This record gives sequence, C-alpha cells and structure tokens, in this order.
Amino acid sequence: MAETTWVLTKRADQTFADEFLVTPERVGGPVKGYSIRKKRLHGGLADGVDVVTVDNGVLQFHVLPTRGMGIWKATVGGEPLGWQSPVCGPVHPCFVPLSDPSGLGWLDGFDEWLVRCGLESNGAPEFDEAGRLRYGLHGRIANKPAHHVEVRADGETGVITVVGIVDETRFHFFKLRMTTSIATRVGTTQLEIRDCVENLSDSPTDIQMLYHVNFGPPLLGPGAEVVAPVKNLVPRNGHSANGVADWARYAAPQAGAQEQVYFFELQADERHGTSVLLKNAQGTRGVSMQFDTRQLPCFTLWKNTISEADGYVTGLEPATNYPNPRSFESREGRTVRLQPRARCTFDLVVQAHASAEDVARAEQGVKALQKLEPTVHPIPQPHWCPDA
Amino acid sequence: MAETTWVLTKRADQTFADEFLVTPERVGGPVKGYSIRKKRLHGGLADGVDVVTVDNGVLQFHVLPTRGMGIWKATVGGEPLGWQSPVCGPVHPCFVPLSDPSGLGWLDGFDEWLVRCGLESNGAPEFDEAGRLRYGLHGRIANKPAHHVEVRADGETGVITVVGIVDETRFHFFKLRMTTSIATRVGTTQLEIRDCVENLSDSPTDIQMLYHVNFGPPLLGPGAEVVAPVKNLVPRNGHSANGVADWARYAAPQAGAQEQVYFFELQADERHGTSVLLKNAQGTRGVSMQFDTRQLPCFTLWKNTISEADGYVTGLEPATNYPNPRSFESREGRTVRLQPRARCTFDLVVQAHASAEDVARAEQGVKALQKLEPTVHPIPQPHWCPDA
Amino acid sequence: MAETTWVLTKRADQTFADEFLVTPERVGGPVKGYSIRKKRLHGGLADGVDVVTVDNGVLQFHVLPTRGMGIWKATVGGEPLGWQSPVCGPVHPCFVPLSDPSGLGWLDGFDEWLVRCGLESNGAPEFDEAGRLRYGLHGRIANKPAHHVEVRADGETGVITVVGIVDETRFHFFKLRMTTSIATRVGTTQLEIRDCVENLSDSPTDIQMLYHVNFGPPLLGPGAEVVAPVKNLVPRNGHSANGVADWARYAAPQAGAQEQVYFFELQADERHGTSVLLKNAQGTRGVSMQFDTRQLPCFTLWKNTISEADGYVTGLEPATNYPNPRSFESREGRTVRLQPRARCTFDLVVQAHASAEDVARAEQGVKALQKLEPTVHPIPQPHWCPDA
Repeated sequence: MAETTWVLTKRADQTFADEFLVTPERVGGPVKGYSIRKKRLHGGLADGVDVVTVDNGVLQFHVLPTRGMGIWKATVGGEPLGWQSPVCGPVHPCFVPLSDPSGLGWLDGFDEWLVRCGLESNGAPEFDEAGRLRYGLHGRIANKPAHHVEVRADGETGVITVVGIVDETRFHFFKLRMTTSIATRVGTTQLEIRDCVENLSDSPTDIQMLYHVNFGPPLLGPGAEVVAPVKNLVPRNGHSANGVADWARYAAPQAGAQEQVYFFELQADERHGTSVLLKNAQGTRGVSMQFDTRQLPCFTLWKNTISEADGYVTGLEPATNYPNPRSFESREGRTVRLQPRARCTFDLVVQAHASAEDVARAEQGVKALQKLEPTVHPIPQPHWCPDA
Repeated sequence: MAETTWVLTKRADQTFADEFLVTPERVGGPVKGYSIRKKRLHGGLADGVDVVTVDNGVLQFHVLPTRGMGIWKATVGGEPLGWQSPVCGPVHPCFVPLSDPSGLGWLDGFDEWLVRCGLESNGAPEFDEAGRLRYGLHGRIANKPAHHVEVRADGETGVITVVGIVDETRFHFFKLRMTTSIATRVGTTQLEIRDCVENLSDSPTDIQMLYHVNFGPPLLGPGAEVVAPVKNLVPRNGHSANGVADWARYAAPQAGAQEQVYFFELQADERHGTSVLLKNAQGTRGVSMQFDTRQLPCFTLWKNTISEADGYVTGLEPATNYPNPRSFESREGRTVRLQPRARCTFDLVVQAHASAEDVARAEQGVKALQKLEPTVHPIPQPHWCPDA
Repeated sequence: MAETTWVLTKRADQTFADEFLVTPERVGGPVKGYSIRKKRLHGGLADGVDVVTVDNGVLQFHVLPTRGMGIWKATVGGEPLGWQSPVCGPVHPCFVPLSDPSGLGWLDGFDEWLVRCGLESNGAPEFDEAGRLRYGLHGRIANKPAHHVEVRADGETGVITVVGIVDETRFHFFKLRMTTSIATRVGTTQLEIRDCVENLSDSPTDIQMLYHVNFGPPLLGPGAEVVAPVKNLVPRNGHSANGVADWARYAAPQAGAQEQVYFFELQADERHGTSVLLKNAQGTRGVSMQFDTRQLPCFTLWKNTISEADGYVTGLEPATNYPNPRSFESREGRTVRLQPRARCTFDLVVQAHASAEDVARAEQGVKALQKLEPTVHPIPQPHWCPDA
C-alpha cells in the first residue's frame, strides 16, 4: 500500500481541484520533508494557468498542466536550474497565437525550463506554396491543457510522481495523446520523465518530439561548457559555422548576439544510453541529461548568448529529429511512424549536480561514452540543413 | 402563471449563475420528473465552458452557452443520439483557432451532436487572391458565447425551454444576433429549436445557416439508412459520385475511408414542411428531423464512415445553402438577405424514435412526402458544385 | 501619510483580488464621496475581464486591466462621454483574433472609450511580400492583460490613481513595457493619463503609440464640432478629401456612410502643449484633450458618421504617428526609437465640460493656440498618405 494517488483533473467525471496540498502526514510512511501543491494562477498572462509544485526537500519544480505538462521552473537549494525569459509567464495558451500567419506566435508563451515541442511537428515554421502557415514553430503540444492530472506519493520509497494526459487532436487530421509521468525521489536532485505518445487513430501517422530544456544564469555564463559524446556535429547555418570551434563553450552575454545552433549525432553505450552535461565555468554546478538514442537519436544545441534582459540562454534538445521545417525532416526520415493505436515512449532523465565532485563524476560518465573521435563538420551539411 | 423563468446570464446587469438547478419543487405544478442544471466545467480544453443540462425524464441534452448554444450530447434512455468525436470536448473557444491560416481551425472544437454553422458564412474555407483566409470552415457562431441565457419551466404543460442570445459582430463588417429557443416537453423525445437571426445593422447583409446534426453508433452502423423525400440529389465530388447508388445506406466503419457528401433538394408538403429520418440497421431506433423548405431549402448529407476512433459519423444538415465556399454560394443566390434590422427564423424539430413502431411511423411520414420520382444525378452538377 | 495603496494584481507574489472596494472610510482623511471598485465579469465575451471602476463623485470610469488598461466607459453626471459600439464588450482578449490573416481581428474587441493602439505598431494592417500578416490593425497592447494593478487614494487631496503594468513581449522580437497611471481628483471631470513605455531589451527598438479616444451620442450629433489649432491638415484618401471643407463638423448618422479620416499637425504653446475640443451642437457639453506635441506630434481625426446601430462615432487620436501601415510610417520617421532600457512618456489629459461656460472657456484655450493660419490640403499628400 505504498503509493497514494490523488486525481486532480479528470475529464470523464469532471473532477477538478482548484487548490490541493499533499504532505507526508496525508501520505503516511517514514519519508518526510516533501510536499505537492496545486494551485491556479490569476491575473495577467497567467490567468487560469494551473501549477503543480513538487518540493522533494532538495529539488523544487513546477509542472504546468495548462501548458502541456511542461516544467516551468526548477530550483535546487534555492538556485534556479532554468533561465529568465523576457516573456514573464507562465502564459495561458489563450494568449499564445499559435496560428499567427508568421508561424512565430509560439514565442509569446516561451518561458519554461523544459518545454516539449511536437507532436505533429516540432521545428521551424513551414508554409505552403500559397504562403500560408502549414506548421507553426515548435508545434502545439506545449499549449494544450492536460485533461487528466494526478499526483502520487509513496511514503515508503519517497517517490513522487506527477502524471498528465494531453491530447493533440484535429478532426480529420491528427489524434495524438501524450501521457507523461514526471517522477522524483525525496532528497535527490533528479527528475525522470517518461512520455508515451499514442496514435489514437486507425490510420498511421508520423510524429515528432523535441525536449527544449533551457538553462540560464547562474549555471550559464562565460566559460560554462557543454560536454557531449559527439559522433557528428553540424552547424545549422553560416553564422553557427563561424562559431563551430567554440561550440562547447559559452561567451558572455552580448546585446544583439545572434543565436547559434548545432546539430549532433551522439555516441551511446551498448544499451543505447547517452548523456550530455552542462557545467558552469567553475565546474561546481551542472545539469546532465540521460536519454536513449533509439528514442531520441537527434540532439540540438541552441546557444543564445544575447544579453540577460533579452534571454541569455542555452537549450539542450534531445529529439526525434532536428528542428528544421517538418517536410524537410520528413524527407530525411526523421519522423516517427506510429501505426494505428501504436505508442512510442520517450525517457529523459535530468539530474542537477550541486558540487564539483558531482560535476566531475557526471563529466567522466559522458566522456566514457566518447569512444570514437568526433567528426565536427565546419559548415552546414546536406541532409542535415535545409539550406546546405 | 404557468411558466417560471430564471435568467442565468445577462450582460446588461452582469447576472451570472455559476451553478444552478431547477427542480419540479421550485417550479410547482403537477408535472414531475425533470430537471434543468447549469454548471461550469474546469480543466483541460473544457475549462470555462458552461453547460445547461435538461433532463425531461426521457430525453437528456446538454446545451453549451459558451459554444453558441450548440447541443453537445443527447441521450434517450441512456442511449446516445449523437457521436463520439475524436475531439473530446466540449472545447472552450479559446482553444479553437478559427483564424488559422488553413481555415480548418474550427475542427479543433468539433464534437457536438448539433452545431450551427454560420452566420456570415457556413461552408468550406475560402481564400482571397493573395491566399489569405477570407472565410474559415463553418463560420464563427459555434465559437461565440451567449451573452444572455435563460431557462423556463412550465409545471402545468411540462414545457422546458432554454433561451440564449449569441452575437456575431465585427465592427465595420457584420452585426448579427441569433436568439435561440430550445424547447422540449417532459416525457417526450422531441426537441424544438427556433432560431431567430437579426441584422442589427442599418445596412443590409447576407447570412447563411446550417444545422450540422451528427450521429454515430449505436444509431449509425452498417445497414443504417437515411430516408428522405428526394427531389434532386447531387454528389459533391467524384468520390461521392462513386457511392451515389448507395447514398442512403451506411457502410461499416473502415480505417482511412474518405467522406462522401450529397446535396439535396427535398420535396415538402403543401405547408413546405419536410422530414428526413435516420434509422438503425434493425429499424428499431431512429431520429427524424422536420423543417421548412422555405427557411432551409438545402439539405446536405455527410457520410464519414471512417473507423470509430477517427469519428464514424454522419451529418444530416438542413441549411440555407450547400456548404461550399461562400462566394460560390453567394453567386448562386444561396444566401439570405437581411434588410436593416430585419430578422429571419429557422425552425428545426428533432425527434428520437425508440421503437420499431415509432421508426415505421416516421418512415411513413417521410415517404408520404415523396410525390415525384427522385432525380439522382450521377455526377457533380454546375450551380451545385464549385468544381463541376 | 496621505496616500494609501492597494495592490490588486502582482505577478511576482501571485497577488490577485477578485473583488475589491475602496471607500473613504477605508482611506481616511477629509475627502468623501468617492469609491474604487474592482470586479471580474462573467459570461459572454466579457468572461474573465477585470474591471476597476472609479467614481470620483462627478466622473465615473471603468479601467480594464484585462484589456491593456484601456478605459471602457466613462460618464459625467450619468451622461456617457464615449460611444456605443456594435461590439458589446468589454471583450476578453481570447475572443479577439489579432492573428486573423486579414489583420482586422482587433475590431472584434473594439468598444472602449479610450483604447491605446501600439506598441510595436498602431496603424492599418500590413502584409509581407507573400501576403502574410506582418502588423495587425492597431497592434497588440489593447489585448494584453496587466500583470500588475494597484489603486491609490489620497484622503487629503482627493486624488485617486489606478496604476497598471502591461507587457508586449515576443521572445527574439520585442520586449516592451507600459506603465500607466490614470489619475483623477474627487469632484472634477478630469482624467490625467501618464504612460511610460520602456524598452526592456538591450537592443534598440522602435515603438508607436496612438490614443484612440472615441465619442458618440449624446456628445456627438449633427452640428457637433471639433476645434483644433491646425497647422496642417491632410485628408487620408479621396473620400476624406471630398469632405475636407467640413472636416470640423459632423453630419447626422447615415446608414452606410463611409468613414473619413484627417491627419493633422497641430500648433502648440511655447511649452509644446496643445489642445483639441469636441463640443456638441449646442455648445453645452464638450470634451477636451491636452497633450504635448513633442510626445504626440501627430493627431488624427476619425469621423465615422454611420448610423447609430453601426457605431456612429468620432475618434480623436493623438499619436506618435499617423495610423498608416508601420513600414510607411517608419520610412517617414514616425516611430519612436527607444535605446536599450530607455523609456518615453506620454501624457494625456482628458477633461469633460458640462456647461456652455466650460465649453466656451475650453474653446478659447484652443483658439489661443491658433497663431498661424491653418494649411488645409485639399487632397492626400506624399509623406502623409501611402497612396498619395
């Protein structure tokens, strides 16, 4: 009887909890020192956004059912893991014009630490021959509300889980369902995300998924570094190519700096596991991410070293593909075919490292994966970059 | 003093009832066994949607003030009259991108049993010469919230009525008001809908209306049949033409099946009344609809015999026109001109038949209208079909 | 300790007051006879709109935090200063399709007395070479909710102030913040609006602002007149040119009348202050506006003498520019450059005149500014009008 479950939102029977609090007292068992709290925000762009806040005693994070179960903010020991977007959210989807003819409306709501891009498409805007928007930037899933939300706590093991179900559906077109489980253990600095995407249709379909995980100060700063077991690296465009020698290091914030983007194929262990690490300049703080290269074969690094006011940030982005326009990626075979009623699963572990020892250990882990010499392409490559 | 009225929403004085319940005890009079209930839904795509549920003892239906007074679901004896859309709503209009450049955003909210299409336009998307959306699929009215809602109950006659007022207004362009009255009598299986559309402008305008009434299992299934007093029948396109010999019968659900659409002119009695019937394969259940061919001269049958997961459904659609692009219909004279401050009225009666006897009686009624031989055009026709 | 402040909305700590009332009793001090009331509207298009209503004993007005701190309605002695739009709002931004490909979706929410147009752009829709919307009509600021709202009352001086902060932000593109202070003094008929627009970015940007202040009956009517210290007047188009001789006077409402628009450069006093007046036909009621021609060098007069049902209205519009497409205005130098973190301020005083004496005094004030003969251009001019 270890685990207790509370359903906060359930469409079928109109369950909905406006405010909610789980404490060790309610759960029972020996584990103490945690909480799960749910509330609805009011006022401004956040009006009507639901937030589930988990505090495992060391790691605090805020899940957004209203925004596709994205993770808004996270802190370890009070220090933010994420970034400060110039968009001050969380932003209710009704204020995010996904259908803006420019295809860029998604940016009006972009301030999460971890935001999923997908499910029909996840890349740059694409237009049809008449100039009409066909796929908006980064897709729809981050602006779809969960119709089912539950939280679980296990007083014996200290495992806390937030579960949500989010549909991306257009009659006649796509019928996709994502069931996410976001789990942590009391006293750790680790999150385990398991997303299951199901094709509810009786016709096959193709999906994409990208985890846009974003880091800013204090972790990010001049001298901060990415460590990744590179097999192939390709700069997205000429401006990114200019910085390819320094792809792994970060410059100081600079007003007006243009983003640089690198596409990777990563090396993995025999079980297809891989890992990437972002560490601060001193090597005393870091965050690493583990994933399976069969599930998420493409990795993108987004370096946006603009001034802090404009969003000094880097994105570490494991994905099914590169965030190019959907049709290009489709031609390159970088979509996931889902047969009728079929599912695919994505696992992503995110771990914060709060000491030099922890960072060093994580770095060793990444470096152990680097068995072959990396191939660093100096310029954009065909099959990787639409304009190459 | 038979009828009692409760105002649930009234813009002028900011009346708004979050939750509401009418019972026979509150109404008085000899009639018992009914209820009218109002609530607001929370969570998921339904967040903020108001629902008025009427239970007349036999027939239950849910009216959606937030979605233009559409009727979400209806059941008789616990059996659904409608369908199960892959869109699981009801969907708040803030999640329906009517302005999507594709013109197809309306489909994100489509899961009602009875949904009105209109009022400026009601058909397929239309674009201007620059490729910009001019008229989105099925118009705006289903995603406009009612600013006035009242319910009435008469304890003597057992008549229950839900009244709503919905405006479709764009400054400089259109100023349309729909006042709907949806009535039923306790213990019957019949709904009477009367919609009055008014041109609030001092300039004339042209409107369209289509009642998109949708049926799925258990009523719909292989062998289910439509009975209609056909004068002329025209298949919309080549694919529909392929099935014209079987226009009245339904195939089993089939994954990937393409929709077929037929346009009708119907025969009517001397008072311009006509009737169509949908009956199940066994002839033991059915729904018929009665309307006036002066008000609703065009009838469209939509057969979407795709798999159940994708929305196995048929639409019986009495309308002022065929759901072609607005400009085509306008050229063919199939819009309703409303002079300044003028109104037009649409009456639609929907009746469920719950026994073989009832179905047979309804079928006799429809067949009695068939005085002339039907003309079934084997292919799309000019003036009916834009591509013919 | 004269002034008391109440924070009604504050993003940082999730302060939000659903309902709120300030009375002289709560404030203290000798001044009596006023109130500040906050509520949230429910139902219809207004669902979720917050309204702050100030009654200074003589002047009542409703500020809309949910709609960019616009002023919905105002009355003096029970008589409306504004107009009756065919759009019956206030309309929640979720029902305003700013991204509509036509660029005209803004009109779905247009019913305020005073609505700001801006901040990235404020004029007519503009499209890119592919026909895609680039700048929608009148910009975004009127459909952005304030994330900070506070009210202040001073029981000694009788000054009541409503303060709001509204951001217009798109990641990668613009980061603008408007802080508005709307102040009145108990017993007066005057409003003082001070808007500070800040560029939160570390890159320079260009902004526009236009105050769309709208008047209808009873102030507006046949024979009503605008008095303005004209330096240059240019009709926007041919139809406006036809009416240039009568630019200052209003015709009776006429069904189907087309709007006429005039662009002005105004004369000002040595401190750059200028003033315009709208007075009724009898000269017994009027409203004047004072502003600084360095802040707001362009003035536009919009005459929409259509029937009352369609929105008989005139707009007096002090602005940084003329409401032409953004790129045209930019080429003509009519945008305001904001350096990184820089601010600009706009001051607008609106005063109602409730007697013939008051109106005459205001008119004298305006006429005293008319030192040079006005230049009235009979036709559209290059550099003023895109089509000239």
